[in-house]
Amino acid sequence: MMREMVLGLEAVLADGTVIRAMNRLIKNNSGFDLKQLFIGAEGTLGVITRLVLRLREKPARQDVAFAAVPGFDALAALLKHMDRALGGGLSAFEVMWPEFYELVTTPPAKGRAPVPHGSPFYVLIESMGGGSAGDGALFQSAFETAVEDGLVSDAVVAKSQAEVAAIWALRDDVLQAARWGLPFVFDVSLPIADMQAYVEQVKAGLRACWPGVRAYVFGHMGDGNLHVVISPQGLPSDARAAVERIVYAPLQQVGGAISAEHGIGLEKKAWLPISRSPAEIALMRTLKQAMDPKGILNPGRVF
Amino acid sequence: MMREMVLGLEAVLADGTVIRAMNRLIKNNSGFDLKQLFIGAEGTLGVITRLVLRLREKPARQDVAFAAVPGFDALAALLKHMDRALGGGLSAFEVMWPEFYELVTTPPAKGRAPVPHGSPFYVLIESMGGGSAGDGALFQSAFETAVEDGLVSDAVVAKSQAEVAAIWALRDDVLQAARWGLPFVFDVSLPIADMQAYVEQVKAGLRACWPGVRAYVFGHMGDGNLHVVISPQGLPSDARAAVERIVYAPLQQVGGAISAEHGIGLEKKAWLPISRSPAEIALMRTLKQAMDPKGILNPGRVF
Repeated sequence: MMREMVLGLEAVLADGTVIRAMNRLIKNNSGFDLKQLFIGAEGTLGVITRLVLRLREKPARQDVAFAAVPGFDALAALLKHMDRALGGGLSAFEVMWPEFYELVTTPPAKGRAPVPHGSPFYVLIESMGGGSAGDGALFQSAFETAVEDGLVSDAVVAKSQAEVAAIWALRDDVLQAARWGLPFVFDVSLPIADMQAYVEQVKAGLRACWPGVRAYVFGHMGDGNLHVVISPQGLPSDARAAVERIVYAPLQQVGGAISAEHGIGLEKKAWLPISRSPAEIALMRTLKQAMDPKGILNPGRVF
Repeated sequence: MMREMVLGLEAVLADGTVIRAMNRLIKNNSGFDLKQLFIGAEGTLGVITRLVLRLREKPARQDVAFAAVPGFDALAALLKHMDRALGGGLSAFEVMWPEFYELVTTPPAKGRAPVPHGSPFYVLIESMGGGSAGDGALFQSAFETAVEDGLVSDAVVAKSQAEVAAIWALRDDVLQAARWGLPFVFDVSLPIADMQAYVEQVKAGLRACWPGVRAYVFGHMGDGNLHVVISPQGLPSDARAAVERIVYAPLQQVGGAISAEHGIGLEKKAWLPISRSPAEIALMRTLKQAMDPKGILNPGRVF
């Protein structure tokens, strides 16, 4: 998480006070950790003017595999297996539901399918680590065990940087979904155990309203973060509120988040009570009132 | 850091409001991250009543080496080298200054010296990772490269769980310093580049006051965290304030922290301005006033 990379910062408060919390230390429990107030607050409590970021050693080695997975249970077991076997080296576990995979591997998309269509799930697995010889062997042996255990039904392991780039390009080719007009794009987060049912519920909800709707789901499953991309083709021009309700409402009962990465801003403000209780929102207001009583910092955002 | 393991929490505010922020998600940017307010605030902003902790896969493998290091530059280079080579697997880099090492490896201490006395620094290096065969080879090859590069002058690599335990027991035998009465124990944090000069300055400051003083330094160098342990023998009974000044004052100019792990409480309150500016402390007071206007939560602590 980016928050974990921030060691210190400088922020200007609503009254002009400059808070110089330019901590460079990894461990510092000397009073409140004030920087946390400003990270992710979308500029409503202060204006961040400087940052101290933690740097980490650049990984010397990158291993990538792309796999077809026979079901959701196998997908969750595969994540758990690779996470444990790689001992901290798992750097990406990017799941694609079949509609997304077929979209980005079928012309006019330029991507080629590394494994045939027809599976319920696909996943890009990446490990990053040090450069010693033993490292590739670790990825190879972890992945082979997964294949032997039936967690993977078909797979390729990238053998060159070009193959790594081609596999990542599939994951990144989200613009294919914009072929029929600017899509609705969502960034939600929920427990892994609830993901399969959630996606089915969203798809069913959309189809109930608009039978021919195109909905694509992919995401950073290791982080619990899914992106739902819905084409506007065939939807009425005022569909946004209904689409949002279909995507957001089921998150409440599973403790999901309406924004995993991108914040609330203006667009998601009305849906904040899906993810946060009245007491939490009241405490946010207490903080806002204490730190910006005139409401001059990014007014109207978040809540 | 423990903070990074906390996904959610429940806290009771001063007015009795229960904040249920029991988030189970890794990524959640839906409004302010309120849990950060309570973590490390020592109960002054709310009483934490429940926690959601992130679990990680238990490492299947542990590799441990103990090394004598010829100088501080080599020590810093060794940390950087092992961190990069192990690709995220470095789990401990526990440095001992020679006084500490000699204390815990000389009778009546029960520990035996894994490498001879006489070096300027010693370090316990640990890697944790997955259980595949390639993993031990990664540690072995990373450590051998360090030896070849002259970063290590003498070393042992633990070959059994008993040897791992014996090496860790040295690091954990802090009680040896209590032989001459309850010691002053400090928990400071500072940039690695400033550590050598800082420790020399503290030792010189102590010796200038009390020539025969016993001071022992060890710490989690990878985290920038040092522990300074000073025996009271031969010091006047009112030495505490002078000892604290010698240990804390040099931290201010290097951006150090008077408390890396253990908080401020009552004992370190007077020294908080070493680590935090007047504007930061004023903002802490603003938060305290907004959330606990009657000052009933852990009164008198922190600032």
